[in-house]
Amino acid sequence: MSTWKIDCIGKSPRLRNPILIEGLPGIGNVGKVAVDFLIDELKAEKMYEITSPTFPHSVFVNEDNLVELPRIDVFYKKLGGNNRDLILLGGDVQPVDAVSSYEFSEKVLDIAEQFKGKEIITLGGIGLSEEPKKPRVYCTGNTRAIIQKYKNKMVNNQLYGVVGPIVGVSGLLIGLAGKRKIDAISFLAETYGHPMYLGIKGAIEILRVLNKELKLNIDVKRLHKEIKDIESDILGKTEQINEVPRQTTLNKLKSRFGEDVDYIG
Amino acid sequence: MSTWKIDCIGKSPRLRNPILIEGLPGIGNVGKVAVDFLIDELKAEKMYEITSPTFPHSVFVNEDNLVELPRIDVFYKKLGGNNRDLILLGGDVQPVDAVSSYEFSEKVLDIAEQFKGKEIITLGGIGLSEEPKKPRVYCTGNTRAIIQKYKNKMVNNQLYGVVGPIVGVSGLLIGLAGKRKIDAISFLAETYGHPMYLGIKGAIEILRVLNKELKLNIDVKRLHKEIKDIESDILGKTEQINEVPRQTTLNKLKSRFGEDVDYIG
Amino acid sequence: MSTWKIDCIGKSPRLRNPILIEGLPGIGNVGKVAVDFLIDELKAEKMYEITSPTFPHSVFVNEDNLVELPRIDVFYKKLGGNNRDLILLGGDVQPVDAVSSYEFSEKVLDIAEQFKGKEIITLGGIGLSEEPKKPRVYCTGNTRAIIQKYKNKMVNNQLYGVVGPIVGVSGLLIGLAGKRKIDAISFLAETYGHPMYLGIKGAIEILRVLNKELKLNIDVKRLHKEIKDIESDILGKTEQINEVPRQTTLNKLKSRFGEDVDYIG
Amino acid sequence: MSTWKIDCIGKSPRLRNPILIEGLPGIGNVGKVAVDFLIDELKAEKMYEITSPTFPHSVFVNEDNLVELPRIDVFYKKLGGNNRDLILLGGDVQPVDAVSSYEFSEKVLDIAEQFKGKEIITLGGIGLSEEPKKPRVYCTGNTRAIIQKYKNKMVNNQLYGVVGPIVGVSGLLIGLAGKRKIDAISFLAETYGHPMYLGIKGAIEILRVLNKELKLNIDVKRLHKEIKDIESDILGKTEQINEVPRQTTLNKLKSRFGEDVDYIG
Repeated sequence: MSTWKIDCIGKSPRLRNPILIEGLPGIGNVGKVAVDFLIDELKAEKMYEITSPTFPHSVFVNEDNLVELPRIDVFYKKLGGNNRDLILLGGDVQPVDAVSSYEFSEKVLDIAEQFKGKEIITLGGIGLSEEPKKPRVYCTGNTRAIIQKYKNKMVNNQLYGVVGPIVGVSGLLIGLAGKRKIDAISFLAETYGHPMYLGIKGAIEILRVLNKELKLNIDVKRLHKEIKDIESDILGKTEQINEVPRQTTLNKLKSRFGEDVDYIG
Repeated sequence: MSTWKIDCIGKSPRLRNPILIEGLPGIGNVGKVAVDFLIDELKAEKMYEITSPTFPHSVFVNEDNLVELPRIDVFYKKLGGNNRDLILLGGDVQPVDAVSSYEFSEKVLDIAEQFKGKEIITLGGIGLSEEPKKPRVYCTGNTRAIIQKYKNKMVNNQLYGVVGPIVGVSGLLIGLAGKRKIDAISFLAETYGHPMYLGIKGAIEILRVLNKELKLNIDVKRLHKEIKDIESDILGKTEQINEVPRQTTLNKLKSRFGEDVDYIG
Repeated sequence: MSTWKIDCIGKSPRLRNPILIEGLPGIGNVGKVAVDFLIDELKAEKMYEITSPTFPHSVFVNEDNLVELPRIDVFYKKLGGNNRDLILLGGDVQPVDAVSSYEFSEKVLDIAEQFKGKEIITLGGIGLSEEPKKPRVYCTGNTRAIIQKYKNKMVNNQLYGVVGPIVGVSGLLIGLAGKRKIDAISFLAETYGHPMYLGIKGAIEILRVLNKELKLNIDVKRLHKEIKDIESDILGKTEQINEVPRQTTLNKLKSRFGEDVDYIG
Repeated sequence: MSTWKIDCIGKSPRLRNPILIEGLPGIGNVGKVAVDFLIDELKAEKMYEITSPTFPHSVFVNEDNLVELPRIDVFYKKLGGNNRDLILLGGDVQPVDAVSSYEFSEKVLDIAEQFKGKEIITLGGIGLSEEPKKPRVYCTGNTRAIIQKYKNKMVNNQLYGVVGPIVGVSGLLIGLAGKRKIDAISFLAETYGHPMYLGIKGAIEILRVLNKELKLNIDVKRLHKEIKDIESDILGKTEQINEVPRQTTLNKLKSRFGEDVDYIG
């Protein structure tokens, strides 16, 4: 039984100098929330579904009361004009052990290279002991050049001493990309470090950075307003959240965001 | 040393469009109790014994004071007439780690396909914080078609938001069957989520559903009465239960149910 | 790097219908203490040293202040006359995970079969919540025949319901031997289930059984007396024991028993 | 994906009868601190960078705000004259599981043998419940000869009963070297067994031993003085240390020691 099962969905696209953006479950789920929003907003198209025995040995029940294996999906979006295209990596889980986490990250870099992708952006959270009012966004990367490129007033690049090790795929992709001479940067937003917390505010701050730098033309203000509504909904149902798994909460969020995209539930 | 040792017991049967029913140890042991009862009541015949180094590295002492390796067994039952035959999967354990759980589930699907089985039913429990008076049975599956097929007044198919991930073989079989285009459904009965608890009531509710849907002609009432006797026995000996492993308690139950079938001890 | 490194010590002996006796660290270290005593008393000769990356990744400092890898050793003893010869398996450790424990047990059975060994005896402890005055010895095995053979007034064969699963090599050897049609029995002595406790009394009771059944001509009384002295030594130094690892305590015991055999330190 | 990625840095040197000295993170980080100091002081040159999926699946942010994979590096130093050359092994991490720890140790011995290295020195700490005023240095090894060679007034070779098992690469290298007939010794200095503690005093005591025995001509007094300054700095910022990962603290130490050597951050 092979470790990584990668199913192709539709025809392989031709992409223009693409940037790969990763956001998987992690601290405050900041990266996952941000990438899931991007996939929705940009109406990105799915090209791969990845399942693996190194993912948790459990299944989710989705909104249609159907069972789904834990899965990581790869989407793409052609932005048109002179813009670089996007490869978007989102999903339900991360590989559970260290060796699989390295292996998976190498697979992701293989996918980037297959499309001649020469830049990686990973998204994640920095867990604080309480909810930040206005989360700051930090960045780190594998070359001075890429940090210089994305440095702006919205992003703080003095991360040294602020965080400990960056754990999981978001960190490994940066490190392993360096060995392949692929520039890679990580945007990390402050968030509340509680396992049930959805770092929506942090995700928005990251989206604002990406929107500006990658010229995505997302209406972040609208996003901001809608999320505020959802948040107050959620905060009013705290007990319920604690009983229902995070997966469900994410689906609720998503069903609120318009098109019922079939990539999580 | 190969991961899965599958010993054939007797000649391989010819089965008619069989349904594979799985019930292994899990929450409240609901699935295991239900399948063990089915094997007894239907006088099913064993066709495979599966042992594996991915099972716990320990052995059980059975009622004959003999040692047994942890084992998962596959039985079959020809129901005759126009009925579809059954493949029944029961045992002492589940594989201990995620990768083995995936691998084992694929092996089980291989067995189903080898007999041209086109339907899987997995049985399990939903752990509540106290013992339910009248456990409800829920279902979920990998296609709308199979849920529609088994939908009836006894089964609730609104599982979304009720449970978190379905962990282990009962969940993976449904998810992985979907990748092979095999319809699969899971019946999950409410039970008390305590590790020493035997979810007999939940198992009975599931057996009633299976009895009706699969026309098994099991005398569920008799089952119900006998179990009530056993239960009061057990409840009167709570302390003793806590000292003796669950394995023993199950054997006690079984020896009460008539023929001494040699599939657990 | 191969999983099991088996170094031969000296020439391979010719053994007469040998019985393999296993005693590794476990509950109360009963099995280890008993086999280590047998190796000393019988002046058994070492034939294999087994090291493995599945053993703990640490080394011991022995009485000569030299480092030793964790090791499992195989000794043999020709008993002469009409007696069956012995293969004795003792050591510092057990494999740490389930898969390695299965693999190691198969290796041990390979060794037994290589010498046409047709009988396995494993030794272990049954952990009680306090120290037993006069430990009872129980047995279980993989055939009625071998239990019948060793049944006597000193051994209780009603183990069912007394213990839970028998964990580790002592249990697996019995179960896996059954698959090879090798008769195997386990003698388990009651002991105090504390990790620092040395189940010497339990080991003595097992040695009395083996002495009688296998006609070993060990002076158990002398053993008994010497051990009593050591025990009172140890009990007078309880605090010291808690600071010094168990390994050291075992070495102390051993240096007391005469010849400085080079099999542990 | 291969388990060990060994990147060569520059040309392979010719070394004169080299001694390999290992110091990786461990109790009090004594070994790591000592070897890192040696690499700095001797201006040793890097020859290998080792990364592996068996290292923790996380990355560090260094002083330049760039990401680095966890790494173990191999340096060499030609001491000139009649002195034996040195191979120095230092790094951020140890392999996380037992099997990888054995495998990595064998790889290190392969490197030693490739340069015809016939002696191994490993460095580590003995964790005490409080900070020792004047840490003692103990030694153990795999032959009486090497202990005799390094025995002097500064080193206590009565380690038996003082420590339990020596865990990790420092211990395994000694044990596994024995199987290859390579003499190996371990110097262990007393230190405070707290995970955030940097065993600088212990490291200094070990450096004094190495300085004398290997004629390294290090100015230990200067080292001693500089470290005292740093230590008082650190002790004045205890709370800060607890928030910032140990990695950072080590880098602080290092940036204090002159040349910005590119081996950790």
